[in-house]
Amino acid sequence: MVTIYGMTDSGNCYKPRLLMALTGRPFRHVEVSFLDGGTQDPAFTAKNPNAKVPLLEEEDGRLLPESNAMLLYLGEDTPFVPQDRFERALMASWMFFEQYSHEPYVAVRRSLILYRTMEATPEQLASTLTAGNKALGVMETRLAQSPFLAGETPSLADIALYAYTHVAPQGGFDLGEFPGIGRWLAAIEALPGYKPLDWHPGN
Amino acid sequence: MVTIYGMTDSGNCYKPRLLMALTGRPFRHVEVSFLDGGTQDPAFTAKNPNAKVPLLEEEDGRLLPESNAMLLYLGEDTPFVPQDRFERALMASWMFFEQYSHEPYVAVRRSLILYRTMEATPEQLASTLTAGNKALGVMETRLAQSPFLAGETPSLADIALYAYTHVAPQGGFDLGEFPGIGRWLAAIEALPGYKPLDWHPGN
Repeated sequence: MVTIYGMTDSGNCYKPRLLMALTGRPFRHVEVSFLDGGTQDPAFTAKNPNAKVPLLEEEDGRLLPESNAMLLYLGEDTPFVPQDRFERALMASWMFFEQYSHEPYVAVRRSLILYRTMEATPEQLASTLTAGNKALGVMETRLAQSPFLAGETPSLADIALYAYTHVAPQGGFDLGEFPGIGRWLAAIEALPGYKPLDWHPGN
Repeated sequence: MVTIYGMTDSGNCYKPRLLMALTGRPFRHVEVSFLDGGTQDPAFTAKNPNAKVPLLEEEDGRLLPESNAMLLYLGEDTPFVPQDRFERALMASWMFFEQYSHEPYVAVRRSLILYRTMEATPEQLASTLTAGNKALGVMETRLAQSPFLAGETPSLADIALYAYTHVAPQGGFDLGEFPGIGRWLAAIEALPGYKPLDWHPGN
């Protein structure tokens, strides 16, 4: 059984947990958080020199960081990877979009507002709102035309972007402006096996 | 033949060009740059609503943004994708690391210094130096133990991280502090078919 080190409230850490729930597979959850210094602990940075969660550990000790790489690894040979080569490429494209153009604004603004580990400047709050809304607009353009991001069926890209999009209102984003996103969020929440952000096998 | 829209001097745009060179495959290059407004042109944003290069276009008009997704798409069934499932996951992990923990600092600091499209603040120059050196340190830890990022042979992860690492000195980074990275850069430059950043089929 794989172990997933992660912080319950983190969308990045939720991604592999949600995939495991949707595919009905067991895993071990170990809580590690940046809020109490856990990700900076030498015992943890020995496992991940980049000092970030989530981190996957195989039973033999092999270690895999990066939430979206964990999705690609755990999702191989599941229905969440399209058979079609171009749809598979689109799935990957949305996953890189998530880490570069969405998470640094939508997730970071939520973190600034929820955790207050540092004082957010007005410039930060303004720039993350603008760039986050731009990212949500790019998703809306796609989801107005396609049921899911890669195509007709849910893929790893939908799990990756669901994680922080569904809690975007906690970062001050108004999802009412994005009806395609609203329909898509509901479709993901209706998938068999779906579990919410705060779920893990220990609770 | 695929078309790759890209800016010659961009590391992100160089990634798919380098893979095509290393695998000996033809493609069409169309210069599109953010410096002259090309990525904001409505004719271009109709193709990529995220207004970024590189962008891949198939002969039938299908469009694929995101440099690292282009690598995964163009690299399928080449020796640059490891056969081993865990090594393949490590490859993806380094590619997401590149977009989240490396590019926003190493590439952005180079852009601030080279292009001067906006005035860089002292805080930006300091924070990108610190975070960029941290990312280079994470790579060094790996490359002190492994010939290439995913394992014994070069993979798409090496192409993804070579792109901005080899020009990091243009961003004020001192690669002399990272001997493992230096060895690895030389190994990539020795690969058959290697072409430098400013190469494309039109020049």
